[in-house]
Amino acid sequence: MDEFLQVAFDEAQKGYAEGGIPIGSVLVHQGRIIGKGHNKRVQNGSVVLHGEMDALENAGRQPASVYKECTIYTTLSPCSMCSGTILLYGIPKVVIGENKTFLGEEDLLRSKGVEVVVVNDSACYDLMQKFIDEKPALWNEDIGV
Amino acid sequence: MDEFLQVAFDEAQKGYAEGGIPIGSVLVHQGRIIGKGHNKRVQNGSVVLHGEMDALENAGRQPASVYKECTIYTTLSPCSMCSGTILLYGIPKVVIGENKTFLGEEDLLRSKGVEVVVVNDSACYDLMQKFIDEKPALWNEDIGV
Repeated sequence: MDEFLQVAFDEAQKGYAEGGIPIGSVLVHQGRIIGKGHNKRVQNGSVVLHGEMDALENAGRQPASVYKECTIYTTLSPCSMCSGTILLYGIPKVVIGENKTFLGEEDLLRSKGVEVVVVNDSACYDLMQKFIDEKPALWNEDIGV
Repeated sequence: MDEFLQVAFDEAQKGYAEGGIPIGSVLVHQGRIIGKGHNKRVQNGSVVLHGEMDALENAGRQPASVYKECTIYTTLSPCSMCSGTILLYGIPKVVIGENKTFLGEEDLLRSKGVEVVVVNDSACYDLMQKFIDEKPALWNEDIGV
């Protein structure tokens, strides 16, 4: 697995171990991780801290010029909230672990000029399937179903 | 001013008094406020807590059935992040104080079936203009410019 996607996956596993939703993300600026995080719905009772949002929050306030040189890695295809956030900050590239469990707004991102790379990583997929088998209601809550 | 937009505006003024970005929001379920908030970029160093996001966060974890009966009020037209979040949770109606300062993703929301009402309230507009005159760099940071 790509080294940065591996860190995102490590975050997802951390979330799983905490009893949370196992989706992780890292924000990479010029080859250096500036923020990483994972879904905090269970841990913080948060409805906005998806993995991508937590990674961005942990990177802290950055100038627009930094975001425009970043790649965001996420273990699962980004939902409309996370995709909208990627567009807000003008992050030009998204690397996605898998999109078989959930297909987010990849078309919207591409239509706005964002480079979207889908790895189809089986470890990311298997972890989500294990989680959804165990806690289907929690998963549905996270995607507004 | 509509009573719920007034509460959103009160939140915006609270944000201004704290030295923050004066945008406020309330989430209303069946005529009752279940969450209110304001932009927390300055106060919390947050890059995800726009007014709408803070209102949703303060409402806490809600079942999908609740969001689908909510209206969200916001003093300023919702950006791509906040619009994406409204879509994620299936909130069917958005009432917007003004969209002259910033025009968010109203077309995207309408295209997905969300009812969008723009009030064009002068108090919401004047507060944003005062703020932007005073702190233009902070405003640009908030919208990723």
